Amino acid sequence: MLEFWYEFASTYSYPAAMRIEGLAAEAGVAVAWRPFLLGPLLHEHQGMTDSPFNVVPVKGRYMWRDMERVCEEQGLPLTHPSQFPRHTVLAARCATVGLEAGWAPAFTRAVYQANFVADLNIGDEAVLRELLAEVGAAPDAVIAAAQSAEIKAALKDHGEQARARGVFGSPSFITADGELFWGNDRLEQALEWAVRHREVMA
Amino acid sequence: MLEFWYEFASTYSYPAAMRIEGLAAEAGVAVAWRPFLLGPLLHEHQGMTDSPFNVVPVKGRYMWRDMERVCEEQGLPLTHPSQFPRHTVLAARCATVGLEAGWAPAFTRAVYQANFVADLNIGDEAVLRELLAEVGAAPDAVIAAAQSAEIKAALKDHGEQARARGVFGSPSFITADGELFWGNDRLEQALEWAVRHREVMA
Repeated sequence: MLEFWYEFASTYSYPAAMRIEGLAAEAGVAVAWRPFLLGPLLHEHQGMTDSPFNVVPVKGRYMWRDMERVCEEQGLPLTHPSQFPRHTVLAARCATVGLEAGWAPAFTRAVYQANFVADLNIGDEAVLRELLAEVGAAPDAVIAAAQSAEIKAALKDHGEQARARGVFGSPSFITADGELFWGNDRLEQALEWAVRHREVMA
Repeated sequence: MLEFWYEFASTYSYPAAMRIEGLAAEAGVAVAWRPFLLGPLLHEHQGMTDSPFNVVPVKGRYMWRDMERVCEEQGLPLTHPSQFPRHTVLAARCATVGLEAGWAPAFTRAVYQANFVADLNIGDEAVLRELLAEVGAAPDAVIAAAQSAEIKAALKDHGEQARARGVFGSPSFITADGELFWGNDRLEQALEWAVRHREVMA
């Protein structure tokens, strides 16, 4: 098992979300999808109230160029969004709703594609309703559930878990034995670790 | 040709320095060694006066664990140094002296090993003298040259070049056509890029 912790505003989490299921299936590792909000952790750890890629422009310029290369290598389209980062609370709550029902992975991919390919405002409820319908979820019911105290608490709990386990960025991968790997470029190593240490868990 | 930009205090630059010549030789790519001081750029870009791994402890904890994994995978020894980061100005000036004479790569590796394996103070002139002697350089002459106006200016110029070309961390790799790659884990991609775009330069 490998936990995949992701924030919808995170650029490098887009290629990670698009490829994790294929790579994990090849490795025979199950993926536990863990949407969370990175903003509170960036604020707590680094005093930031905006994306690190906006706070430090030289890093931002590098990231966008690097994302072009990464996406080209993976054969993924990429659009520099007209607004960055976008609000992700409602999208993350919707994904949390979809964890049990099983559509969270498809919805997650749809949200990343909306944000980083179609340049749609994933903070907008109308956009999310369309994405929910696309993946076969019932928009009215999901939006209502997303605004329930239970789901709000569940997403907050994800954030607390992430903090407690040393997560500080997205995407992050955590193996069953607690090894943390940060970054899309660490996905292969995280899966290798999960495979190598599987016996210990069994 | 691939430029290898490195700061001696940088942890991830240690595995990069140890493996770049082997990988570059396999790829048929020449390496241009570029010692520089990252401190002024960290201050300018991010307002930091200490290592980011000290400024943001959660990142520091992750980095040391990740370094253990990276070094284990490369078969490199690693010691968590008793002092981090260490002063690197004199070491970087010595490396700059060695660029023309040809011993800069061997000296660079010796400095990283002193810092991250033997836990020696690479800010100490006596330590650097021993490392210089080990790689066949003449310590008296090199230390004198390192303190000359010419070498001080050359190292400062490296820092200016790094800044102008978008470098914000170490290790960084820049190809002949100006592509910047950041991080030990980008070395393979940087070499692939250099090979793929070689014709354009020839």
